[in-house]
Amino acid sequence: MSEIKISSVFEGTQITNLITGIAQKARDASRILAKVTSSPKDKALISMSSAILEEQGFIIEENKKDIEDSKAKGFREPFLDRLTLTPSRIKSMAQGLREVAALHDPVGDVVKMWRRPNGLLVGRMRIPLGVIGIIYESRPNVTADGAGLCVKSGNAVILRGGSESIRSNMAICTILRDSLKKNDLPEDSIQTIPTTDRSAILEMLKLEDYIDLVIPRGGEGLIRFVSENSKIPVIKHYKGICHIFVDESADPKMAERICINAKVQRPGVCNAMETLLVHENIAESFLPFIVKRFEEAGVEIRGCERTREIVPWVKEATEDDWYTEYLDLVLSVKVVKNLDEAVSHIEKYGSMHTEAIITQDYTNSQRFLSSVNSSTVLVNASTRFSDGFELGLGAEIGISTSKLHAFGPMGVEELTTTKFIIYGNGQIRT
Amino acid sequence: MSEIKISSVFEGTQITNLITGIAQKARDASRILAKVTSSPKDKALISMSSAILEEQGFIIEENKKDIEDSKAKGFREPFLDRLTLTPSRIKSMAQGLREVAALHDPVGDVVKMWRRPNGLLVGRMRIPLGVIGIIYESRPNVTADGAGLCVKSGNAVILRGGSESIRSNMAICTILRDSLKKNDLPEDSIQTIPTTDRSAILEMLKLEDYIDLVIPRGGEGLIRFVSENSKIPVIKHYKGICHIFVDESADPKMAERICINAKVQRPGVCNAMETLLVHENIAESFLPFIVKRFEEAGVEIRGCERTREIVPWVKEATEDDWYTEYLDLVLSVKVVKNLDEAVSHIEKYGSMHTEAIITQDYTNSQRFLSSVNSSTVLVNASTRFSDGFELGLGAEIGISTSKLHAFGPMGVEELTTTKFIIYGNGQIRT
Repeated sequence: MSEIKISSVFEGTQITNLITGIAQKARDASRILAKVTSSPKDKALISMSSAILEEQGFIIEENKKDIEDSKAKGFREPFLDRLTLTPSRIKSMAQGLREVAALHDPVGDVVKMWRRPNGLLVGRMRIPLGVIGIIYESRPNVTADGAGLCVKSGNAVILRGGSESIRSNMAICTILRDSLKKNDLPEDSIQTIPTTDRSAILEMLKLEDYIDLVIPRGGEGLIRFVSENSKIPVIKHYKGICHIFVDESADPKMAERICINAKVQRPGVCNAMETLLVHENIAESFLPFIVKRFEEAGVEIRGCERTREIVPWVKEATEDDWYTEYLDLVLSVKVVKNLDEAVSHIEKYGSMHTEAIITQDYTNSQRFLSSVNSSTVLVNASTRFSDGFELGLGAEIGISTSKLHAFGPMGVEELTTTKFIIYGNGQIRT
Repeated sequence: MSEIKISSVFEGTQITNLITGIAQKARDASRILAKVTSSPKDKALISMSSAILEEQGFIIEENKKDIEDSKAKGFREPFLDRLTLTPSRIKSMAQGLREVAALHDPVGDVVKMWRRPNGLLVGRMRIPLGVIGIIYESRPNVTADGAGLCVKSGNAVILRGGSESIRSNMAICTILRDSLKKNDLPEDSIQTIPTTDRSAILEMLKLEDYIDLVIPRGGEGLIRFVSENSKIPVIKHYKGICHIFVDESADPKMAERICINAKVQRPGVCNAMETLLVHENIAESFLPFIVKRFEEAGVEIRGCERTREIVPWVKEATEDDWYTEYLDLVLSVKVVKNLDEAVSHIEKYGSMHTEAIITQDYTNSQRFLSSVNSSTVLVNASTRFSDGFELGLGAEIGISTSKLHAFGPMGVEELTTTKFIIYGNGQIRT
C-alpha cells in the first residue's frame, strides 16, 4: 500500500467538484451493488477481514502519524486512546467484518405477500437504500464497521471521519476498496472523503440526489450540526436518559441486580440508567438497601424530597437532574405514587431511548409495555440490552431516537427499504 | 355549527405563538390518542361519517363562500370544480371515513417476536408516529380523508389546506372535532390552521419537537417548497414517469390491453404510463398495431428513430420527452435491444415510481422484478394498480418516491413505527 496523501486547501468550486464527483461515483456503484447476490458480497467481506490483518503494519504506520499530529495539536487522553489502533483493536475490526459476512442478507427477501380479489399477487421485497453517508468522530474502527454493514446490505457508502483520524481511515478504506476490486465488486462502493476541510461535510449534506441517508455518529454537537445542515434524511440519536421503574410488586433481589447492572456495568454509554423511579409502597424497604449498594459501587445519588426523607444523607436532585444524561457514576432517584406517575415522568423528562419496569404484577407489566413509547421497553431486564447485537440484529449501525424509518437499534435490515412487486396475468384497472 | 372565522393579519410573534400553541396541543392529544384501543377510535370515525352527512348544509354553505371568493379572485375551471363540494362528494367523504373505520388498526400489533439465547423474548410492536402535518392544495376532501387515516393509526394531525378552501376545511374540521369530543377522545387530535397567512407553513415546518412527519399533497411546487423549508422529515412524491416494457415474448393481445389501460384510462394521474419501451424483435409487428390503437384513443405518439422507421408518421421524441411526465394523452415510445437496455433507460430517465414488464418469459419476469428498483414493479399488469387501495392497503395517505421510512403507496401501517418490547425474567448484561 502506498502512503496516504491528504488535500486540505481548496479554491473556488474545487471542493464542490470533489464531493459531487465522489457522490456520483457512489451512486453508480450503488446501482451495480444493489443487484449483487449475497455470496459475492460475503466473499468480499471475508477477504476484507483477511486484508485488514495482513496489512496491519500499514494501518498502524498511518495511525501513528495521526497520533503524532494530534499530540502536536495538544490532544490528550482519553482522546488519544480512542484514536489509537492496537493489534488487538485491528483484530477485532477484522473479526467484525467476518461476523457481518455471517449475518443474513436482507436484500431480496419478500417480507409479506398477499392475493388481491382480481388475482394479482402483491408482495414487498427488500432493496438497499442506495447511498449512505456516515459522518463520525475519532474512532477509526467505524470505517470498517460502517463499510461492512453497508456493503452487506447492498448500499454504497461515503465515509467522513474526524480530521484527527484521517490517515487511519484512509488506510483502512484503501484496503477495503482493494478487496472489493479483487472480488469484482465496484470499488467506489466504499469511499472516504480525502480532506480535513470541514466544508466537505456541508457539500455532502446538499447532495440529496445522490445520497439517500446520512448517519452521524458522535457527540450531540456533531449530530445537531449534521441535522441542521442536511437536505438529506438523517437518522438522529441525541441522547439516552434511560429510566428503571421499580414497581411495588418487584422482587427486590432481581431489582437490585438489574439496577446495579444498568447503572454500574458501563456508565458512559447511552443505554445506562440515568434515573431510578421507585414505587412509594416499596420505597422505605428498598431505597436504603439499594442506595447503600450504589454507594459501595461509587455511584453518587441525587434524590427527590421523599427519597431524602428515607435516605437523608443523599444530595438533592434539582429540576435539571431529571433532564440530565450523566454518562457517569451519578444517578437521580425519585419516589413515585404509582405506575401512572412513573409513565408521566418518563414522558416529560425522557429521551424516548430505553426504559424498564421491574415488577411481578402481570397487569402492570403489560400496561408499561403499551404506554411507554420509547424505542426499547423492557420488563424485568437491564436497560443495557438496548443494543443491536444484544437484541439479535447482528452488528449495529446506530440507534435512532427519531421515529421515522427506524426507531431504536438499527441493524442491516434498517439499511433497506421495500418495493412492491406484483405478479399479474393481464389485469387492467376498471 | 357557527360561522367560520378566519384571521389573516398577524403582528410580531403572533403567528409563531398561534402555530406553536396548535402544535403543543397536538402533541398532548397524540399522547392520549396513542394509548386508545381500536374500538373507541372506530366509533369516533363512524360518528364523524354520520355527522358529515347530517351537517352537509353547513359544509356546503361555507364551501360556497370559498367558491365566491375564488371567483372574485379570478380563478376558473377546473380549479373551481376541484374546490366544489357537492352532496355526492360529501357522501363519498362520509363513506371514506366508514371504510377507514373498517380497516385493521395496526397500533399494538407485534410484527415479529424472537427468543434470545439468554431467554429474553424480543418483539417489535407498532406504535403511532405521533403528530402528522398534512399540507395540501385545493381539494377539501383531503381534510376528512387525512384526518380519518391519522386518527385510525393513533396519530394527531395538523391540517393546512389551500387558502382558497379554508372555510370548507374549517367547517369539516369543526364537525370532526365535535365527533371526537362526543366520543371522549381529545378533540385536538384534529386541528386546522385557521389562517391563510403563508408564513404559518414556515412556522409549522420549524417545529421538529412537536411534529414527527410532514406530508405535502399537491403539485411539485408545493412539495419542493415544503421539503426545502422543513426541519421535520417529509414524505416526498415528486412525479411519476411510469414505463411499460413490452418484451419480445409478450402476448400481443395482453400487451395491447394493458398499454391502453395504463395510458388512456386516466391519463392525468401519477401511475399512468408515460413511456412505452418495445423489444426490437417484436417492434415491427407490435408497433403499427398499438400505435393505431393509441391514435384511435386520441393519444399523440412521440417516437425514437427506430420507432419512426416503423411508423413514420409519428412525431420525433426529443431527449426532453424521456424525462417528461405528460399527465395527458401523449406517449413517448422507444425501441430497445433487450431487457438490459430497458432497465438502463428506466434507471436514467425514470422517477422510481412504477414500471411494468409484459412478458411470457420466466427468466425475464424475475430479472425485471429484481433489477428495477422503483417503488412498484409489475409483471403482466397495468401500472394503474400502483395505488394504496388497489394493492390492498386500504385508503392511501400518499405515495412516497423517496426510500426512507416508506416507498410507494402508504396506508395506515406507514403512519406507524415499531418499538422493541422485551420480556425478561431478571436478565442482566455481562
